[in-house]
Amino acid sequence: MKVDGAHYRSLWVDEDGWSVRVIDQRALPHRFETVRLQSLEDAAKAIREMTVRGAPLIGATAAYGLCLALRRDPSDAALEQAAAALRSTRPTAVDLANALAGMQRALAGTGPGDRAELAYRLAGELCEASVAACRAIGRHGAGLLRALATERGAGPLRVLTHCNAGWLATVDHGTALAPIYAAHDAGIPLEVWVDETRPRAQGAKLTAWELGKHGIPHTLVVDGAAGHLMQSGRVDACLVGADRVTRIGDVCNKIGTYGVALAARDNAVPFYCAFPATTIDWTLEEGLGSIPIEERDPQEVLALAGRALVPAAEGREPVVTVGLAPAGTPAANFAFDVTPARLVSGFVTEHGVCPATPEALSAQHPEAPRAGHAGG
Amino acid sequence: MKVDGAHYRSLWVDEDGWSVRVIDQRALPHRFETVRLQSLEDAAKAIREMTVRGAPLIGATAAYGLCLALRRDPSDAALEQAAAALRSTRPTAVDLANALAGMQRALAGTGPGDRAELAYRLAGELCEASVAACRAIGRHGAGLLRALATERGAGPLRVLTHCNAGWLATVDHGTALAPIYAAHDAGIPLEVWVDETRPRAQGAKLTAWELGKHGIPHTLVVDGAAGHLMQSGRVDACLVGADRVTRIGDVCNKIGTYGVALAARDNAVPFYCAFPATTIDWTLEEGLGSIPIEERDPQEVLALAGRALVPAAEGREPVVTVGLAPAGTPAANFAFDVTPARLVSGFVTEHGVCPATPEALSAQHPEAPRAGHAGG
Repeated sequence: MKVDGAHYRSLWVDEDGWSVRVIDQRALPHRFETVRLQSLEDAAKAIREMTVRGAPLIGATAAYGLCLALRRDPSDAALEQAAAALRSTRPTAVDLANALAGMQRALAGTGPGDRAELAYRLAGELCEASVAACRAIGRHGAGLLRALATERGAGPLRVLTHCNAGWLATVDHGTALAPIYAAHDAGIPLEVWVDETRPRAQGAKLTAWELGKHGIPHTLVVDGAAGHLMQSGRVDACLVGADRVTRIGDVCNKIGTYGVALAARDNAVPFYCAFPATTIDWTLEEGLGSIPIEERDPQEVLALAGRALVPAAEGREPVVTVGLAPAGTPAANFAFDVTPARLVSGFVTEHGVCPATPEALSAQHPEAPRAGHAGG
Repeated sequence: MKVDGAHYRSLWVDEDGWSVRVIDQRALPHRFETVRLQSLEDAAKAIREMTVRGAPLIGATAAYGLCLALRRDPSDAALEQAAAALRSTRPTAVDLANALAGMQRALAGTGPGDRAELAYRLAGELCEASVAACRAIGRHGAGLLRALATERGAGPLRVLTHCNAGWLATVDHGTALAPIYAAHDAGIPLEVWVDETRPRAQGAKLTAWELGKHGIPHTLVVDGAAGHLMQSGRVDACLVGADRVTRIGDVCNKIGTYGVALAARDNAVPFYCAFPATTIDWTLEEGLGSIPIEERDPQEVLALAGRALVPAAEGREPVVTVGLAPAGTPAANFAFDVTPARLVSGFVTEHGVCPATPEALSAQHPEAPRAGHAGG
């Protein structure tokens, strides 16, 4: 996607041919900066501290983390160790484990001498496949939005989204935002309600930034407002991303998504979820209780970083972290929740749009384990 | 209630016998300060700018606003004008209109000569009645919490609350928090989940402060977390306040309350609402579409004030307002939503606990218009 006219992905191999550049998503929207990853440790830290985030981008970063590790030590032991280190950075998004498992399988049969080179090739292919998947999600999702817009009739289609499932959450294009970009580019009038998405405010900081750069009309609201917006007839559809989707269609996504889905159901607003097949965990049935929900530092709830407005930041660092609650307040920071499939109107993946049922999900995805092979 | 050992109400007549002191709730929890109101304009501004907030406290402040106006000009015209000015400060909480209407009725039959004195007496009585109502809400609600705790068995009762319906939202004791204080004081072990409540973060800033001062175990979470907490079996009951309750039991309360109620229903967690009878609007049936939902300055969504943590506020103002979204981001700020009675397990008022039905609400409140008088 474009940032002030220049084309960017959220991650790329640097000009030196081996180190990896990522956009520093902790600095946005206040500063646009990139960070150079030169080691396994750099990659693991970038994922853990959320310099990069979003299920598909975490997977891509982990793939390059393996490359950086193998460049230093291409042994079997190093490969195993690096994969374990990267896998442990964040527990919820399954793209991370899927990317690492895929890389490991492909690298297992190669001797250490060719490993680093092959790893870079595989990571590059993974990124291209991810970009292609997101582009296809955009195409299929734009068709869905076009149909919803036709149904709605006059006026722009009003879509509510939660967190950031834009191009910053992927290598390019996005998941939930890919259809929005594609529909907008195809001339379908849209307005996006952007949930702030506390605690890290990825809606306010990243989605509002992305949509603004692309010229898509949008309005920021607090997370608690989604219900009122739907109650008062201001939302035509909800469209969110996912961090892990189970075989039966339960969706694990950013904390608060479940509440959006409940409000959508209570007001008969369609609720769609967009993700690439790499986000599906075919090994899980019910999401609740089986998907590990990451608990992050309570400090993310207690404090917030932003551009100093009052007093203005004259002659000092413009970004200030402020505490809201009394010092010493206990806080809990659950990063994700699970939206049961029963609340989901449909899925958008690179293979098309389908209902949120095990049968439809499986039928749409050739890589789904087939019933006949269940015991195999 | 007590602040560091000293007893406080949220509003009182100052030592001079006429001006009115309120706790500046915009400064909490970072600074504990009081503000002196000396005129109608001061009172109206304190309500509009949320120096004071919370439905019962707004009503009490408006009552004293009339006193301050009549002290300067006790004429019929001034009374009418002052009531209109105060009524227009905030549209949603009906306690404001109720307090003003009650004062006006009682003052109408008095000559200008005695008006200011009578107004102060009436405002004082209104405050005492409000404190008594909140104390009774605490008593009845503590009985409810005791029953829920017995049902739960071992371990503390885990209650989730939204926004601030504590003593700061009333003259004293609170509405939703009154039962929590009373139950805690009666030795019932409790733990409170405190919703942050964006945009103004009254949960983080006021409820966490109140509960901390009273020594009640509590944990702050972002608004989006309520669903996950209930999904994962961490909440035994929800207890919130109200800004306006209709005849049929629809509850208008701080934005996000409806989402809490939806999550409670989906997880079979009881959802209770506590308020004094002054919060009931007997003239309305359905809340949705009939209760005016205040839209406040979008800046409240775009920016947040807090204590500077990084960089530390050495030698300068410790409270900084920071912007989260890109400059120029459009935002909307709906301050309330409506929870339909069908999602409410029961009401706690000064008259007791009752189901959220028109019949029960009416039967419990002697001031309810009687069916036989409907056409009168």
